Amino acid sequence: MSAGKLPTNIICDVRSYTLTTVAGIIGAGVIGGGWAARFLLSGWDVKIFDPDPAAREKVQSILKNARRTMPSLSDEVIPREGNLTFHTNIGDTVAETDWIQESVPERLEVKQQTLEQIQSLSTGIIGSSSSGFTPSALQKLAVDPTRVVVTHPFNPVYLLPLVELVTNSVTGEEIIRRAKAVLRDVGMHVLHLTNEIDAHIADRLLEAVWREALWLIKDDIATTKEVDEAICFGFGLRWAQMGLFETYRLAGGDQGMRHFLTQFGPTLKWPWSRLIDVPEFDQELIDKIVSQSEEQSGQATVREMEQIRDDNLVGILRGLKANGWGAGALLNRIDAEKRQRSALPTCLDDISDLIQPILVLDRIVPVDWVDYNGRMTEHRYLDAFSRATDYFLALIGCDDAYVSVGNSYFTVETHLRHLHEVLVGERIKVRTQVLFGQGKKLHLFHSMCRDDNLIATGEHLLVHTSLSSRQSSLPSLPVQQNLAGVAAAHRKLPRPEGAGASVRLA
Amino acid sequence: MSAGKLPTNIICDVRSYTLTTVAGIIGAGVIGGGWAARFLLSGWDVKIFDPDPAAREKVQSILKNARRTMPSLSDEVIPREGNLTFHTNIGDTVAETDWIQESVPERLEVKQQTLEQIQSLSTGIIGSSSSGFTPSALQKLAVDPTRVVVTHPFNPVYLLPLVELVTNSVTGEEIIRRAKAVLRDVGMHVLHLTNEIDAHIADRLLEAVWREALWLIKDDIATTKEVDEAICFGFGLRWAQMGLFETYRLAGGDQGMRHFLTQFGPTLKWPWSRLIDVPEFDQELIDKIVSQSEEQSGQATVREMEQIRDDNLVGILRGLKANGWGAGALLNRIDAEKRQRSALPTCLDDISDLIQPILVLDRIVPVDWVDYNGRMTEHRYLDAFSRATDYFLALIGCDDAYVSVGNSYFTVETHLRHLHEVLVGERIKVRTQVLFGQGKKLHLFHSMCRDDNLIATGEHLLVHTSLSSRQSSLPSLPVQQNLAGVAAAHRKLPRPEGAGASVRLA
Repeated sequence: MSAGKLPTNIICDVRSYTLTTVAGIIGAGVIGGGWAARFLLSGWDVKIFDPDPAAREKVQSILKNARRTMPSLSDEVIPREGNLTFHTNIGDTVAETDWIQESVPERLEVKQQTLEQIQSLSTGIIGSSSSGFTPSALQKLAVDPTRVVVTHPFNPVYLLPLVELVTNSVTGEEIIRRAKAVLRDVGMHVLHLTNEIDAHIADRLLEAVWREALWLIKDDIATTKEVDEAICFGFGLRWAQMGLFETYRLAGGDQGMRHFLTQFGPTLKWPWSRLIDVPEFDQELIDKIVSQSEEQSGQATVREMEQIRDDNLVGILRGLKANGWGAGALLNRIDAEKRQRSALPTCLDDISDLIQPILVLDRIVPVDWVDYNGRMTEHRYLDAFSRATDYFLALIGCDDAYVSVGNSYFTVETHLRHLHEVLVGERIKVRTQVLFGQGKKLHLFHSMCRDDNLIATGEHLLVHTSLSSRQSSLPSLPVQQNLAGVAAAHRKLPRPEGAGASVRLA
Repeated sequence: MSAGKLPTNIICDVRSYTLTTVAGIIGAGVIGGGWAARFLLSGWDVKIFDPDPAAREKVQSILKNARRTMPSLSDEVIPREGNLTFHTNIGDTVAETDWIQESVPERLEVKQQTLEQIQSLSTGIIGSSSSGFTPSALQKLAVDPTRVVVTHPFNPVYLLPLVELVTNSVTGEEIIRRAKAVLRDVGMHVLHLTNEIDAHIADRLLEAVWREALWLIKDDIATTKEVDEAICFGFGLRWAQMGLFETYRLAGGDQGMRHFLTQFGPTLKWPWSRLIDVPEFDQELIDKIVSQSEEQSGQATVREMEQIRDDNLVGILRGLKANGWGAGALLNRIDAEKRQRSALPTCLDDISDLIQPILVLDRIVPVDWVDYNGRMTEHRYLDAFSRATDYFLALIGCDDAYVSVGNSYFTVETHLRHLHEVLVGERIKVRTQVLFGQGKKLHLFHSMCRDDNLIATGEHLLVHTSLSSRQSSLPSLPVQQNLAGVAAAHRKLPRPEGAGASVRLA
């Protein structure tokens, strides 16, 4: 690998935008610390008060998690991180701030007293992270109740966009406007509730699930693990992208929500839950749901919504697959079984005629590899070739075990030719020819076919590298020998058309 | 674009594995049709009975959705689709099958009579899709109750992996074994319940949410849209990857589940839900939950679990971002605002000195672009360069509007050099130099930097193409003129090191 030298005609210094707003954080546990991270990484300065001696360490730990992942949500330049300071009294913390976020423990009298104390020291707007108390309850001791609102976030605060902004009749329009502007500035989706109610909306739904789940555990119907699996292998996947009503609208098929209500309305009277304090399911309620659902999702047909839902589910499932977690881990296990049953060789001995390019990839083009026209996007050709390279390397002994002890091949140079387009769902195969394989170097030529059509080629130079020193190194003897065998056989093949070409104006 | 010619040394014919198992589907609405699609696309033959004259059309519509997306869950060769036949009587449908799936409407007497009828004609195992009836209730009229089990799936059945297998005391071990084998063969996660209960597990949780949500609608606290937003911008994202208990374990911070229970146990007595039939929250229940949760997730530390959760959330959110939906649409809006505030030029007039490579990308490396060592994976270099190309093209007038009327540039050839590694979270910038831009052709050279270090280059040949004819074509006059201006200025720049190189053994 040659060292990179910066051409003199490249200027690397550009302005970065910064914000100069300041947030005061009162209480820095999991939630308060999460708020601090969200503000800081959105470019705000953050001042923290928390009497817990461990608070500083807890915040740093949350901030470490947030720094690792929150910037990944953006595909643009991100703001410069704000300054973080810790303070020993509330007065210093809330002075000269543009927003005050209260996240002390969920005990009403503690919250009321804290809010009173903050307001004796500041005239700023205070958002309370309360999971369940109403603004009216929280405002009880407030010096200025008009400036106390609920801004209830969800853990992890630095990643989940939802915030419930709950206001009541005393809250002024200007306070609401400013609260929304602040919350949007730190990247949140503001759900504004003007009819205050204990536990707002989300935690009412969560509390209902929690109560039912406790019965399941208590009655020995299911374990905590089984309850969790019932969620994250099923409806949890749906709810990451559409909620309860939109999902049920689609379950109703072509006739939509009204059909669903006809089908499943009666269950309210059935023993499907231990929670039997149900509302009267009358025509008025049915009409209300149908018309609200129509307004919510009526712009798209059920068929269009199904496609959106399915694309989202594939995106979510493939995201989990890349991480090898939950439903994604299941898909990886299924793939491993499929590979065993496929025509791909699992070792060099599987190959009857070695004087042929080796089949190393056989798959369809998934929906998350294509553009809005259903055509495979540019970098997915390299994704496929890169998987092909990995498969070939495993065949010659450079497999996971080999990599885990500190050896690998690194690609240093690549040449791609696009000859034909390929569409979503089409089956592609990649075959690999070794052009050179000796010492530290490996020169591969991949051919991607759809049926009998060559659609793209990838030519790659790789260098064997020690993962500890990051320097080039010789492969192990078995890998060298395996590679030599393939290279000797492939020398008998004609040199592929396009090999050695450079990008030129033909 | 030259036409691809297949080198004679490539063989495109390999065996495809097929399965020869047969499923009988009784009732083919949204759920039965979903089952049919899952079986067919897993390589099973499928026989369908449904008296509804529209059933055939409905199944084809579901199958169309499934064909578009279910194969995308795999990165391996997929099974050949099975044969689908429709039958006019139950006897033909269930004869010589390896599995019978009943999905008639959720009315107990209808299901009981259907199961009785099936069993008078077949000795196969029957899975009922019932959302809520217990095996005991369903077996009432059964000829052989030992062969009637519940296999409750989730819509869309062809994508969501969860199936609740509910058996009772009459079910034999061999039946359970075979049921599990069939369900796993079609890619499902089997949640096996031996304590039968109305609505099983998942639908009890769903019913609880449903009942609470109906109160919110009825009481005018929230609309259907607001309820849905409270789910899919917040806890729904969490539940796609971890369930209720695992999520709360993490919310408890370092002290885990017991701390969470201490904090939020009291809410059971609070008016946080209209559903007040709650279990006694005594020490016994607390200990049970803590020990089950420990067994479920105790292998990993809270810190490790937080990282897994965060990586999953980023994967899910970026999947939704690519689709421009829900929380992903929000992130796209935020990015658009960021772009406005960034140092990237938004048009050619923004560029003060045109005799410089143009800054077209400025971002960090997100967590879903790196390998398990935190290093950017091969194809993401091309992903970045491809985004850089798109940005440059928009600058010269080849933007979304231009593409939407049928014009675009297609990449036909690419040469990449990897000079240094780049890690997750590091900031990368790409600058673009035009080497040639005239007529149908465009020759670009991208330089990717981290601070002052050149880490990779991308050289690309593009051809202007008509999206309707898929033939090369001349760009519009404004695009030609814009490009000519940049090309003329960039001719004054030195030719970048590495331009025109081909993959060679140095």
